[in-house]
Amino acid sequence: MKVAVLGTGIAGRTIGSKLVSLGHEVAMGSRTADNKSAVAWAREAGDLGRAGTFEDAAAFGDVVVNATVGVFSLAALESAGADNLKHKVLIDVANPLDFSRGFPPTLSIVNDTSLAEEIQRAHPEALVVKSLNTVGADVMVNPGMLPGPHNIFLSGNHGEAKALVSGLLESFGWRRDDIVDLGDITTARGVEMYLPLWLKFFGAFGTGHLNVHVVVAR
Amino acid sequence: MKVAVLGTGIAGRTIGSKLVSLGHEVAMGSRTADNKSAVAWAREAGDLGRAGTFEDAAAFGDVVVNATVGVFSLAALESAGADNLKHKVLIDVANPLDFSRGFPPTLSIVNDTSLAEEIQRAHPEALVVKSLNTVGADVMVNPGMLPGPHNIFLSGNHGEAKALVSGLLESFGWRRDDIVDLGDITTARGVEMYLPLWLKFFGAFGTGHLNVHVVVAR
Repeated sequence: MKVAVLGTGIAGRTIGSKLVSLGHEVAMGSRTADNKSAVAWAREAGDLGRAGTFEDAAAFGDVVVNATVGVFSLAALESAGADNLKHKVLIDVANPLDFSRGFPPTLSIVNDTSLAEEIQRAHPEALVVKSLNTVGADVMVNPGMLPGPHNIFLSGNHGEAKALVSGLLESFGWRRDDIVDLGDITTARGVEMYLPLWLKFFGAFGTGHLNVHVVVAR
Repeated sequence: MKVAVLGTGIAGRTIGSKLVSLGHEVAMGSRTADNKSAVAWAREAGDLGRAGTFEDAAAFGDVVVNATVGVFSLAALESAGADNLKHKVLIDVANPLDFSRGFPPTLSIVNDTSLAEEIQRAHPEALVVKSLNTVGADVMVNPGMLPGPHNIFLSGNHGEAKALVSGLLESFGWRRDDIVDLGDITTARGVEMYLPLWLKFFGAFGTGHLNVHVVVAR
């Protein structure tokens, strides 16, 4: 599969490397074609990796991963080019965390909408699926590092797109039974608004290597 | 122990009944002394139960539980009387869910503050502890109804108050190891902003008899 990974932060690099290790061709996109982090990542990734602008990467990918900083995601996707996102599965792993007033961050989009919904609205012909934003990068691509069952979530309006993402998650090591389809793209509000609690868990447990398991009455 | 339970909804009635079953004296408070739900509850509760206004109940209790509808909690606590809350442990189980624009609700207090913080600010001499707001009423008082470990959280500025609430939670059936102290009262932002996700879980799993277990790398 040809995948565009937009964003050169820890999430983008980790997802990109995992995809390469699984044999996918990955183009990492950033604001500038000569982004040092992206170029270094592509060099390390070898034949299957390349770096370019958001637009270059999105044009290359059959699937697009939005791993940009959440408060800049809409701008990044706009510069990726609407035509390059059309009819493609767009996996949104970003969180609209606003650190401009320091720590802890607030959510720049909240309550009656979500980043994923705003992306879907801005790109109505893209097949947006929210996922992976509820765990740190290490856990995203290596769920087995945590003991016992724990869950990852899907939100989106397009069943076939969620099925593709579910398969990708399984290839990352997520067990099918632990992948929970929460429903349409509005359910992204829930997983995005969970982030402040994730940050409190980080503080209380002293590690970001954590996740939640949803326990339901039998 | 003498406990005031403010709020006559399912959470208030369930917590009140559990407290009575554990031998505590419980005064259920509502806006009016003749609230039908509270009077019926008190009749059923027997000798250990009584009903009255928010003020009556708060004056009676050594510990106060805020189980009022979240968007009205600050008004309810104001009418309970600041003097009746002074130096008392105030357990805030409410969520500031605003249903005025329909379902799903939004949070009327969000991001850089929380209902619990606003309560602590309005009543600086009360010992506010946020807890139990992350589960439905049935699970609050009967955590064993769910299989395997799952967590309940504490947020507050007062260690001795959190210790008292922790003991109360243990008497409800929560295992000490599953009670997580998230930190000071600002951590209530996390547990309150989790509510939209809880509602999505309810939708996806078809039951409110659920909770999360935080899984941490060993």
